[in-house]
Amino acid sequence: MKRLLSSLIVSAAALAGLAVALPAAAQFAKPEDAIKYRQSVMTVLGTHFGRIGAVVQGKVPYDAKTTADNASVVLAMSTLPFSAFGQGTDKGGNTKAKSEIWTEADKFQAAAKDMQGQIVKLDAAAKSGNLDAIKTAFGDAGKACKACHDTYREK
Amino acid sequence: MKRLLSSLIVSAAALAGLAVALPAAAQFAKPEDAIKYRQSVMTVLGTHFGRIGAVVQGKVPYDAKTTADNASVVLAMSTLPFSAFGQGTDKGGNTKAKSEIWTEADKFQAAAKDMQGQIVKLDAAAKSGNLDAIKTAFGDAGKACKACHDTYREK
Repeated sequence: MKRLLSSLIVSAAALAGLAVALPAAAQFAKPEDAIKYRQSVMTVLGTHFGRIGAVVQGKVPYDAKTTADNASVVLAMSTLPFSAFGQGTDKGGNTKAKSEIWTEADKFQAAAKDMQGQIVKLDAAAKSGNLDAIKTAFGDAGKACKACHDTYREK
Repeated sequence: MKRLLSSLIVSAAALAGLAVALPAAAQFAKPEDAIKYRQSVMTVLGTHFGRIGAVVQGKVPYDAKTTADNASVVLAMSTLPFSAFGQGTDKGGNTKAKSEIWTEADKFQAAAKDMQGQIVKLDAAAKSGNLDAIKTAFGDAGKACKACHDTYREK
């Protein structure tokens, strides 16, 4: 538990650092670039989250190192998309982003933070090597993903 | 230098771990999924590599923490694409992968390893906070990227 907590604190600190280092300011030349970037981040995130899901669902045998590596990628990706939702990136490319992302920016940011917090817990659980803890954290993280997608992404 | 070297060794160890943890075995349901995944990884990698490039070229002021964070993302991405070049992923989606990736698999893997080694050095330079070292490492890494793209990616 001590190890889990200390891992959680380190990850949370890293997360806070990244959030500061990557402001929402325009870091992309064109809206299409921001859209392609955030969709790419989500593809990578979803692939590795899905691999943990396959273990949680018993479709793939649990391997502690592989699951921890997958969680590390998910954690690294979880902080990246939100700098790419700047003003003017609501149109362009093949985006499914709903306008509420910008009209309810505070709520969207809160949902993003909730997801990031759940992913920090998932990463800590994965590094603890406790499959039951991973299952719980995966379920909570999945709910956070779904809540945001249901509200802010077109079907 | 000691710090740089120790950072390099830790990163190299992490890299070796990931390479083992993510074998080339089919981790994707369809070739299209593998292609989308590896292209997404490259988009994320290229975005953050490009941000370091903007600093190296003097277009953006050097900030040590931001550059180190960008290098961390590049490092994390550098190990991921190669598990997604499995047999049967030479066609499908909108891939620009050349058939030489599979007919010269050993050379392709060697080129991938060379790139990964250069990125480990770039990450170490970024964490050292020495802009001259970053410039050198960025140039070397860029050459490794280009060499592989020139040989294995359609224009």
